[in-house]
Amino acid sequence: MAEITAVSPLAPAGFPVLPEIGGVEFSAVAAGVKYQGRKDVTLIRLCKGTTLAGVFTRSATRSAPVRDCQAKIGLDSAAGAAIIVNSGNANAFTGRNGEEATRIVTSAVAACLDLPESRVFSSSTGVIGEPLPHERITAKLKEARAALSPSAIRDAAEGIRTTDTFPKGAGAEVEIDGKRIRIAGIAKGSGMIAPDMATMLVYIFTDARIARPLLQDMLAELTNLTFNNITVDSDTSTSDTLLLGATGVSGVDITTPTGPFRDALHGVMLDLAHQVVRDGEGATKFVEVAVTGAETDSDARTHALSIANSPLVKTAVAGEDPNWGRVVMAIGKSGATADRDRLTIRFGDILVAENGWVSPEYREEDGAAYMRNPELEIGVDLGLGSGEATVWTCDLTHGYISINADYRS
Amino acid sequence: MAEITAVSPLAPAGFPVLPEIGGVEFSAVAAGVKYQGRKDVTLIRLCKGTTLAGVFTRSATRSAPVRDCQAKIGLDSAAGAAIIVNSGNANAFTGRNGEEATRIVTSAVAACLDLPESRVFSSSTGVIGEPLPHERITAKLKEARAALSPSAIRDAAEGIRTTDTFPKGAGAEVEIDGKRIRIAGIAKGSGMIAPDMATMLVYIFTDARIARPLLQDMLAELTNLTFNNITVDSDTSTSDTLLLGATGVSGVDITTPTGPFRDALHGVMLDLAHQVVRDGEGATKFVEVAVTGAETDSDARTHALSIANSPLVKTAVAGEDPNWGRVVMAIGKSGATADRDRLTIRFGDILVAENGWVSPEYREEDGAAYMRNPELEIGVDLGLGSGEATVWTCDLTHGYISINADYRS
Repeated sequence: MAEITAVSPLAPAGFPVLPEIGGVEFSAVAAGVKYQGRKDVTLIRLCKGTTLAGVFTRSATRSAPVRDCQAKIGLDSAAGAAIIVNSGNANAFTGRNGEEATRIVTSAVAACLDLPESRVFSSSTGVIGEPLPHERITAKLKEARAALSPSAIRDAAEGIRTTDTFPKGAGAEVEIDGKRIRIAGIAKGSGMIAPDMATMLVYIFTDARIARPLLQDMLAELTNLTFNNITVDSDTSTSDTLLLGATGVSGVDITTPTGPFRDALHGVMLDLAHQVVRDGEGATKFVEVAVTGAETDSDARTHALSIANSPLVKTAVAGEDPNWGRVVMAIGKSGATADRDRLTIRFGDILVAENGWVSPEYREEDGAAYMRNPELEIGVDLGLGSGEATVWTCDLTHGYISINADYRS
Repeated sequence: MAEITAVSPLAPAGFPVLPEIGGVEFSAVAAGVKYQGRKDVTLIRLCKGTTLAGVFTRSATRSAPVRDCQAKIGLDSAAGAAIIVNSGNANAFTGRNGEEATRIVTSAVAACLDLPESRVFSSSTGVIGEPLPHERITAKLKEARAALSPSAIRDAAEGIRTTDTFPKGAGAEVEIDGKRIRIAGIAKGSGMIAPDMATMLVYIFTDARIARPLLQDMLAELTNLTFNNITVDSDTSTSDTLLLGATGVSGVDITTPTGPFRDALHGVMLDLAHQVVRDGEGATKFVEVAVTGAETDSDARTHALSIANSPLVKTAVAGEDPNWGRVVMAIGKSGATADRDRLTIRFGDILVAENGWVSPEYREEDGAAYMRNPELEIGVDLGLGSGEATVWTCDLTHGYISINADYRS
């Protein structure tokens, strides 16, 4: 692994103050799975009555822990639950051995916390193809259990990091009928980030009480507006996992898919998704690509991702070059419907191109000045319909090459 | 444009000696379209009776010259023909002005060479979105006409370059029924290279006599085995054009889609396609990705391109890191069918992974030693069927970032 020496220039000022979530406890311990001298095993305990929803990578070569989570997530239970995460080893493409290692870890957690094995979810993130040294994880479970605390969410955010340059957290509180509901989440991810989904682990908790079907529907809908619309390098991980747990401890029932709770959850998920992009490997620019006027929302998303994934667009952004011709190229190659003569392109508020050509008002020096901002908006209107989509990405820099040409060597 | 100071380390030893093609003459002149002091306008004249076939970018934002070529390519004619190419300006996304500029250039060539305008094909390559200074091109036509020569193909190969670090040519001669047929082609392209097709201009000529429908079918079939299977950066140009002209001067008729002529043409096209990859922006490694055992050829190509386009695979290659886990990742994300437990991965002759896991025989130091070669083969067998595909790509290096973060600035 390349040494990460500096925090991303796009990082938030610091880790946020997050609300404690009744019924959720966290700990992280140093187990030496791969890294030495840093916390690499994270344990999360959820109280009885917690409902759980999850979304996972669609990779055909997804890891053993992902397959295990997928098998368990739909099983309702009145029991408590636990999540165990290790960094340093993805336990992916490890054959039958990988499934066995996952079973050993989850059954050990079940025994340690007196839970049914079907309620223990695991994630592994790191190198692919090396056997998971599960005994290093199970040896630390008692220590991890002893350290469990409702206030240790930041430890958990630290413990799940791999190439991340900063721990990622986001939270919200909403009042419903005079009662307070809290949401807090953590995430990891910085490379191998692309829709459906990313090398991303995300764990979000709330003390609201929500039945599993509604929780799952809400999570799926909001994932399509957040984590499924970010991309760093178009590469999709074998390990992506997003778990959402609702403990019910607040006593407030959520029974509808819209309203202030959904909006607050959306905000937390968007914040975490943006933090993943802000920690994109080598990133120096945070870029929003907003496409409107497409024939369909799906077409808009295809265009937006084609722009956001284009190496030539991303290197132009890195070079602070207002090279809108590359945006035209990316629209042209996407495969979705476009008409050159109806296309409008904006950098922020600057009208760059319209009617199939550069705008007569556009001045190159305005574009060049705009590109020097660390946060950029590329706006495209196709002039064809009402389809729209917004995705987020970062630039492609020498830092990305340095990190990834050396990883594992 | 970034200054290109060094020839690609993967370049051939030199420009090949190419056979002269009866009925084809070349010239290149310095017109100052964008670059100063280098040949940037190339003229090619084809004799009466020449049949022409073409394949073009599928970009929805393709350039005015491409649209013009597409409108003309199917028109049979007994007249001669001409090709006019400028570098430095793509005449793409230049609105109605772009179509007008193309018309002005092609009609000037038609008048200069006494040809119908419908038999003059043009290509433009370079920056997108700037008006084509067509008057600089038309001012040089008489000079270009005076310089036309059957032996000047290398001048043409030089004249069509943009970021290319070396001129690209390939040729072949075959004997059919005791008579000799000659093929010679030139190409340009190094970035914005991806299937269907690339920032690529390719012109190939033969003195065989072939009816247009057969010529077009043969070109389309062979393009799918060559230029449509190379990728540098997954970005698709607005300008890709491949024209194939058959003058008939040899007096040898080709009437079947198989046989020695087809094989020789395939060889010339593959050679040129490989040269484009070898000149991939910043490339230090030439990589063949061969996928076998897929359910279908189409699935095999999807997997092969997913590997060849993955930034994480390409940076691993740049770092000489035998990171086969990233190959697994790229297979998993491709969307085509794969079964982890039937997958076999090879680096050259080295068996790396099989049966869903690293091979027990594999030693990391063997993989690391192999990756130090400048030419690499990544072999994947899916163990599912008989579908297969081979694609070619290069690594992703600091050089790519340097070239593309500065282009146009």
